[in-house]
Amino acid sequence: MPFADRLNNVETSAIRELFKLLGKPGIISFAGGFPDSALFDVDGIREAVNAALSEEPGATLQYGATEGHPPLREQLAAFMASKGVRGLAANDLIVTTGSQQALDLLGKTLVSPGDKVIVEGPTFLATIQCFRLYGADLVTVPVDGQGAQTDRLEQLIAEHKPKFVYLIPTFGNPSGAMMSLERRKAVLRMAVKHGTLIVEDDPYGDLYFGDAPPPSLLALADEVPGARDVLVHCGSLSKVLSPGLRVGWMVGPAELLAKATMCKQFSDAHTSTFAQATAAQYLKAGRMPATLSRVRRVYAERAATMTTALRRELGDAIDFVAPQGGLFVWAWLTGAGGKVADGAVFAKKAIEQGVAFVPGAPFFANDPVHATLRLSFATAPLDKIEEGIQRLGKAL
Amino acid sequence: MPFADRLNNVETSAIRELFKLLGKPGIISFAGGFPDSALFDVDGIREAVNAALSEEPGATLQYGATEGHPPLREQLAAFMASKGVRGLAANDLIVTTGSQQALDLLGKTLVSPGDKVIVEGPTFLATIQCFRLYGADLVTVPVDGQGAQTDRLEQLIAEHKPKFVYLIPTFGNPSGAMMSLERRKAVLRMAVKHGTLIVEDDPYGDLYFGDAPPPSLLALADEVPGARDVLVHCGSLSKVLSPGLRVGWMVGPAELLAKATMCKQFSDAHTSTFAQATAAQYLKAGRMPATLSRVRRVYAERAATMTTALRRELGDAIDFVAPQGGLFVWAWLTGAGGKVADGAVFAKKAIEQGVAFVPGAPFFANDPVHATLRLSFATAPLDKIEEGIQRLGKAL
Repeated sequence: MPFADRLNNVETSAIRELFKLLGKPGIISFAGGFPDSALFDVDGIREAVNAALSEEPGATLQYGATEGHPPLREQLAAFMASKGVRGLAANDLIVTTGSQQALDLLGKTLVSPGDKVIVEGPTFLATIQCFRLYGADLVTVPVDGQGAQTDRLEQLIAEHKPKFVYLIPTFGNPSGAMMSLERRKAVLRMAVKHGTLIVEDDPYGDLYFGDAPPPSLLALADEVPGARDVLVHCGSLSKVLSPGLRVGWMVGPAELLAKATMCKQFSDAHTSTFAQATAAQYLKAGRMPATLSRVRRVYAERAATMTTALRRELGDAIDFVAPQGGLFVWAWLTGAGGKVADGAVFAKKAIEQGVAFVPGAPFFANDPVHATLRLSFATAPLDKIEEGIQRLGKAL
Repeated sequence: MPFADRLNNVETSAIRELFKLLGKPGIISFAGGFPDSALFDVDGIREAVNAALSEEPGATLQYGATEGHPPLREQLAAFMASKGVRGLAANDLIVTTGSQQALDLLGKTLVSPGDKVIVEGPTFLATIQCFRLYGADLVTVPVDGQGAQTDRLEQLIAEHKPKFVYLIPTFGNPSGAMMSLERRKAVLRMAVKHGTLIVEDDPYGDLYFGDAPPPSLLALADEVPGARDVLVHCGSLSKVLSPGLRVGWMVGPAELLAKATMCKQFSDAHTSTFAQATAAQYLKAGRMPATLSRVRRVYAERAATMTTALRRELGDAIDFVAPQGGLFVWAWLTGAGGKVADGAVFAKKAIEQGVAFVPGAPFFANDPVHATLRLSFATAPLDKIEEGIQRLGKAL
């Protein structure tokens, strides 16, 4: 069967092959990218959906506006206000089917084949494939413990004049890095100076362990005149409430939101009103702050357990920056003492020892760093984290 | 802001402008394309979502497989079996975010810019725009009271060698036409003969008023050797259960479903598991047959009321084939007695009289027939249908 040319731009993922091995009995998995189901506020969601079906059954089950269910847009604007974003009206955001759809709509709306897009190295795997399906030519800006390197970013912007720059500034998948306040301001200033659109993807920003991270680019944008006109912000309830709802949102310039809405109409008409009305009721009920503090506490404890065990069991054969939030430890194999220094080779040895993680190379759009790996601490209980890291030590 | 070139292929809809006028107080609307909210089985859906949250809270709220929630795929395969489709396994279909997403995935997976796609004239408006966004060059096959004209279709297939042919054989939007059994078999034979992929979109087939329509192309495919290899079938719960769930599905050759699944991963990761688990519980509870007979009875009565009133109030100035199912009357202005013969002009006069419908011209990808119009009988109660058609008579 002759498929569209655009499919030649993407390849089936090496990670997918790895995931087939995860069914092995007794495997401890640090490979996932999802939150812990045991932390979902099932009672809160049950109350929310029942309230929606009682108070507004028609709107909950009928077709809805492509831009989103109005009560949810109101609640999301208020949620963003609680996170330091000033002056955001319900009409300044559209609801998307998870933030994955926001990425898809950005590709559909903005990218012509051959257009340059700058992403972080490493970045979210599904972003790479999503933009490439629209023909994007990806350019990589390196990330360190302070997030994307902004000096290098400005050089790349000047050189490539990209359609946009895609960043996950706070606890990104897979890097876990937290961009510093200084770099955030630098990004906004260079966006205005070069007239370059910045896409801030922020699914993890609420999952901090100690002090809150610096404000999002969106919250900081008021400090840099003109920044709001060149900034898109993607949010999601997937990591903090439930991925199964598939509720995300996108804030951006009105002209861009209008085009994205038109494209969304032909992508899926609108996001499930059943899920949207449920999310709106949940937010309205005021349960989010308690949910957030519970998940922060649990993930913080798991992250601390994992990083302590990694240092103890793998010593100088591994290097990483302890995450201050999110779901991931991003690490480098140093090769010290002649130990394995390739993430993919290590992943295979680890599976043999009954523990799984994801090698880091596929997360690079260009010039993969083969020594890297991503470990999720989100879904394993503390004793399994200890045991899994011991197995990793043996595998090394 | 510089947008992607593909946006130049679509235009904002003339219908959208009309919809802005619908807020006028006292308007009776036959303009919508949606089912009646008052017919939704709210109690059944409430029971279903509560069962899902009690029996499988993790799977209902967590990320799920891109192909779909396994229990829903099982239930949908059984639902298709109840409609005469033999030998369909759960793995032979994928779940989509409404059938609109099935169309989007077909465009993404199959259409390179400049590829020919044959659609019916008239056809579903969002199909036209959806395929054009991927660069499809649309060719139109005319429709009459027996559905798409198959002699003409075979000529067009031979001439244009299209990537695929998109048909709504049963009570299509907007034509309401029901393709005859003979033409259905002819479509399958020519698909095999020319090796041409046929896409059967079937959101309305369950909404018949008297006898059941001929079997779907999918149900008939066993009679034509090789037909299953060149046939895609799109289904939806939107018209029979609830559009707000956004649950559709797609049956097709394994190779195509695999590519569509890959594309879906980057479109929205997966369809809301919250909605999918609810739909699965609903189907499992066995409530669908009663729901279907209720909506069939109500829509049949409304359709009969509308067609009787149209004949009485508009006489020989209008022509139509009385629908045997679905949500729509598709009609032609004859211009008899020097009356208005342009659907768009008539729509404006009608709004002034307090009644709305959609002119038919935008439903044609090529060579619009300006005398046409689409009237939905789905959402107005019988007395409003009578009154609305009387107003139409005055407007004419």
